[in-house]
Amino acid sequence: MALPLATDDPRRTRLLRALRRESVDTTPVWLMRQAGRYLPEYRATRARAGSFMRLAQTPELACEVTLQPLLRFDLDAAILFSDILTIPDAMGLGLSFVEGEGPRFARPLRTAGDIARLGVPDPEGELRYVPDTVRLVRRELDGRVPLIGFAGSPWTLACYMVEGGGSRDFAHAKTMAWNDPASLHRLLGTLAHAVADYLAAQAAAGAQVLMVFDTWGGLLAPPMFAGFSLRYLAEIAQRLRAHPAARAVPLILFAKGVHGAGQLEALADSGCAALGVDWTLPIAEARLRVGARVALQGNLDPAALHAKPEAIEREAAGLLQAFGPHPGHVFNLGHGITPGVPPAHVAVLVEAVHRLGRRVPA
Amino acid sequence: MALPLATDDPRRTRLLRALRRESVDTTPVWLMRQAGRYLPEYRATRARAGSFMRLAQTPELACEVTLQPLLRFDLDAAILFSDILTIPDAMGLGLSFVEGEGPRFARPLRTAGDIARLGVPDPEGELRYVPDTVRLVRRELDGRVPLIGFAGSPWTLACYMVEGGGSRDFAHAKTMAWNDPASLHRLLGTLAHAVADYLAAQAAAGAQVLMVFDTWGGLLAPPMFAGFSLRYLAEIAQRLRAHPAARAVPLILFAKGVHGAGQLEALADSGCAALGVDWTLPIAEARLRVGARVALQGNLDPAALHAKPEAIEREAAGLLQAFGPHPGHVFNLGHGITPGVPPAHVAVLVEAVHRLGRRVPA
Repeated sequence: MALPLATDDPRRTRLLRALRRESVDTTPVWLMRQAGRYLPEYRATRARAGSFMRLAQTPELACEVTLQPLLRFDLDAAILFSDILTIPDAMGLGLSFVEGEGPRFARPLRTAGDIARLGVPDPEGELRYVPDTVRLVRRELDGRVPLIGFAGSPWTLACYMVEGGGSRDFAHAKTMAWNDPASLHRLLGTLAHAVADYLAAQAAAGAQVLMVFDTWGGLLAPPMFAGFSLRYLAEIAQRLRAHPAARAVPLILFAKGVHGAGQLEALADSGCAALGVDWTLPIAEARLRVGARVALQGNLDPAALHAKPEAIEREAAGLLQAFGPHPGHVFNLGHGITPGVPPAHVAVLVEAVHRLGRRVPA
Repeated sequence: MALPLATDDPRRTRLLRALRRESVDTTPVWLMRQAGRYLPEYRATRARAGSFMRLAQTPELACEVTLQPLLRFDLDAAILFSDILTIPDAMGLGLSFVEGEGPRFARPLRTAGDIARLGVPDPEGELRYVPDTVRLVRRELDGRVPLIGFAGSPWTLACYMVEGGGSRDFAHAKTMAWNDPASLHRLLGTLAHAVADYLAAQAAAGAQVLMVFDTWGGLLAPPMFAGFSLRYLAEIAQRLRAHPAARAVPLILFAKGVHGAGQLEALADSGCAALGVDWTLPIAEARLRVGARVALQGNLDPAALHAKPEAIEREAAGLLQAFGPHPGHVFNLGHGITPGVPPAHVAVLVEAVHRLGRRVPA
């Protein structure tokens, strides 16, 4: 990385302090999918790698794209460049990315037998490229900002594994929930174990924050969310608390579209340090509902990064004001940044958050 | 239609009574997109028509597919076969459907000038094929069950018109909301006028229930929903109340994914008779929140129709029980039926709702 920071530079710890709900000099900000296709330098590295999987599985290249947004923007965290489907791939499902179509598994799960045969992958075995990337990024970052590791939630991984790829409604996975819940629970239990091991290995390799993406939890009616997703998110949190390398590492849960009565509260009680919130739940309401239990991360509509700079600044100001002068806010989008966003707009947002989020020392 | 019904057959009025929150012999049921691709006879008529637009714009063919599900299932309503994008097409945007890709406009709205030039189409002019279909279906139904007419909401139509077709996030329309709200409001105002005229013409032609689909309202953060969608839904309700042919026709609003604090309540106060509810909001919670103000329509997860018959019956029973012995429930899916559903599963659902929804006369 370009510039070494002073040892007391607030960027070193701003994110970690906010996740612990401690006082901060200004609101920390990072963006989901900040290392991604909206950056020309990302597209160049991606082209050099030849394929998305090659990019994700080559630590030097994954490290390079992880750091790219930090060279441009004053972000308060790096997030590991990887994909949530590395675990199913390591379980033998054969992942590939079809251009313009998204992920595809060569061997999707179709029967109870397919599920019974799945093992928990060794994160320092088949998946070693991930902790290797974490180690490399940590070395390159040299303490500049914290590094976030991540994984997909058991339910979200199961959606892809049963469907065989992306889907609007993941009807195959849901049908398994109705027709053969025992098999689905077996799959989700195996995945909870695998995800916890994988995240613990990332922590052991140096990840200072862990995040679980439950991208498809919001497709479930609330009772099904409780039984097939939340339960396994809580199991992961519990396993991490029992793990020496992960015990003290803050865990962020992001269940997109899940904010019904009692759902946000249940997520906050699941053992995580922070909740990610999508843009359709007002952040002030989220804060009132979870109180002092967890920090909150979010939640600007990602589409706002297409708007003109004055509008981006106005939206950021509104969000900071809505959260108010409370501890525990990590500014982020309400979902991942999209490919067509002008990088200059990201700079506008990051600058505005740091300027407008500044706290007057008490 | 096959069998004429006795004049006092409850199917003639079950839906209308439920929408007025009057007592019913059993819960009425119909399914969003019940005339659609999951039916082989629909696919045959669609093939004969040559194109989707030809099917929608030929009253004899549109009437035929409207009636198809009623020949198979004991449904309590027919819904006009049409598309929400007929209005933008009549406004000159040039609608076509690309196989596997969805709708596309030859001339999307890009500038304030494009929007200023839009006129309100005459429903008995360019759009005459729609009231013509309504008249034909009413004649064929002969009072057997009520006919539902429908339209897209101004916000949802604007999404497609500004984007030029379908999208995951409709970032173009949202960007207009941030960068040039005056132009977007002008567009939405024109659309509210056009939608109200169009629905009134359907009522004048014989539609006994009207429904507005705000398919993309849930993509908006709540303050934007209030300003750019709800406001125009309320305007439509108000215009219909002022129209002699539509005044007494119950209006159902369906804003998918919109059920945040205060949002459902605001929709219930907008002047409609009923709210459609998607499957991610528990129906018991929806009922408690809107009280006796409106009837509720919904809300089985459409994916449940892929499950085995016992599971479908169990889910239907759970939903009926959750709603409880209150007036004002119209059973439906929480979104449209999907192409791969076995028609036999629909028969299982309809039979189960009528059997399990039966009220013991007091």
